[in-house]
Amino acid sequence: MKELVLGGTRSGKSGYAEAQALSLSVSRWVYVATAQAGDDEMAARIQHHREQRDARWQTVEAPQALGDCLRRLDAPDTCILVDCLTLWLSNCLGDEAQRWAEEREALLAAVDDSRATLIFVSNEVGSGIVPLGALSRRFADEAGRLHQALAERCDRVMLVVAGLPLTLKDKKS
Amino acid sequence: MKELVLGGTRSGKSGYAEAQALSLSVSRWVYVATAQAGDDEMAARIQHHREQRDARWQTVEAPQALGDCLRRLDAPDTCILVDCLTLWLSNCLGDEAQRWAEEREALLAAVDDSRATLIFVSNEVGSGIVPLGALSRRFADEAGRLHQALAERCDRVMLVVAGLPLTLKDKKS
Amino acid sequence: MKELVLGGTRSGKSGYAEAQALSLSVSRWVYVATAQAGDDEMAARIQHHREQRDARWQTVEAPQALGDCLRRLDAPDTCILVDCLTLWLSNCLGDEAQRWAEEREALLAAVDDSRATLIFVSNEVGSGIVPLGALSRRFADEAGRLHQALAERCDRVMLVVAGLPLTLKDKKS
Repeated sequence: MKELVLGGTRSGKSGYAEAQALSLSVSRWVYVATAQAGDDEMAARIQHHREQRDARWQTVEAPQALGDCLRRLDAPDTCILVDCLTLWLSNCLGDEAQRWAEEREALLAAVDDSRATLIFVSNEVGSGIVPLGALSRRFADEAGRLHQALAERCDRVMLVVAGLPLTLKDKKS
Repeated sequence: MKELVLGGTRSGKSGYAEAQALSLSVSRWVYVATAQAGDDEMAARIQHHREQRDARWQTVEAPQALGDCLRRLDAPDTCILVDCLTLWLSNCLGDEAQRWAEEREALLAAVDDSRATLIFVSNEVGSGIVPLGALSRRFADEAGRLHQALAERCDRVMLVVAGLPLTLKDKKS
Repeated sequence: MKELVLGGTRSGKSGYAEAQALSLSVSRWVYVATAQAGDDEMAARIQHHREQRDARWQTVEAPQALGDCLRRLDAPDTCILVDCLTLWLSNCLGDEAQRWAEEREALLAAVDDSRATLIFVSNEVGSGIVPLGALSRRFADEAGRLHQALAERCDRVMLVVAGLPLTLKDKKS
């Protein structure tokens, strides 16, 4: 089972995804954190999130090389929750031009080959005014393209608004 | 009955909420306006909204101290429409650090104790690019947290897009 | 049949709208492009989109005077896809004050009189932080108002997220 959980800032998407993961009957839960503590505000956010998490989670940090990380953790009886894709995207876009294209292809290939249950959390960033800066525009473009590519590969796609999940895709239904 | 109506800029959320309120069989309709006319553009918006409203509405202004305002107006046969929460949030966030935390707790407690029909209108602000400024980020964070806290307490939560309501939660259904 | 397709940046709204149009049994498909190649980035986007499109499409450029364009193309057995309304809005808002009001009224009147199948693609721009600049605020306001006015006139209104369509309105259902 593969699930993509989209939502805006503080929409409750992470809480929904964690509850969803812990409701599964697997033997191992891995939380893949993509955040990098670049400044104090971000360090505080990371710490806050870690303290809120259930004890069953094993935490792995993967600010980059996310596809490799998923391959290393891959196992049939495991649930891997990646939170979140947009942080990973911003970690990769800053670097040289080819970096993001390679990271993206590696992730999609790892998703295609995966035997684990995968849950991806990502920020909806494309529904505001299109930003003036070229990097922000590229960020919104790449996030949207990535969401489409993953949504195609996922069995379920949810949009979380105010903590409430809206079903965009559910293969069972 | 408690309802939260979310939507982007000019999504038709206020029009939907007003129609919803006026369809109820109560004896009194109170419109709680949180806008503050800080500049000419905002003064024109407030005036425009006031002129559009049905004559049944009694208007009360509450740029701050919203919880107290709800308690004063509370009565079983009354519909109170608050438009909108994000303006109230921006009125409170500018002040000293404790102000918002107190305002927020006072509102949630007033909601818990209320006997009136409450309809809250609020702006979806977290689905664009995360802004660079610390205040804008805090604004988006606090708006998202508030929406989650209220959505938990509400019987109905709607997302309005292009004037069309999408049901996120409906206790009856 | 008239349809409005909303969605954020790279949400897959154009792809959905094109597939929707080509599934119709009409004899002519006209793609009305509102983009203006003001800089290299935009020129590359326009070229990229054009190369992706099916050979059945006839392309017409209408950065302004969109209502007139729809009237010229109008015919019962034709599907006209306009992509996208927010680019047209930004082409018109920069000009003198009356321009947008006239453009808007001409479009809505052409929609009311149309015998063709019309599909409009437009960007959801109002769900992020309200921008500080007066022009950006007016842009978000006018986009929201336009979406409401068109949604009223359309038989179907869809919101596309991650390539997946969510039904906001469907007269048949």
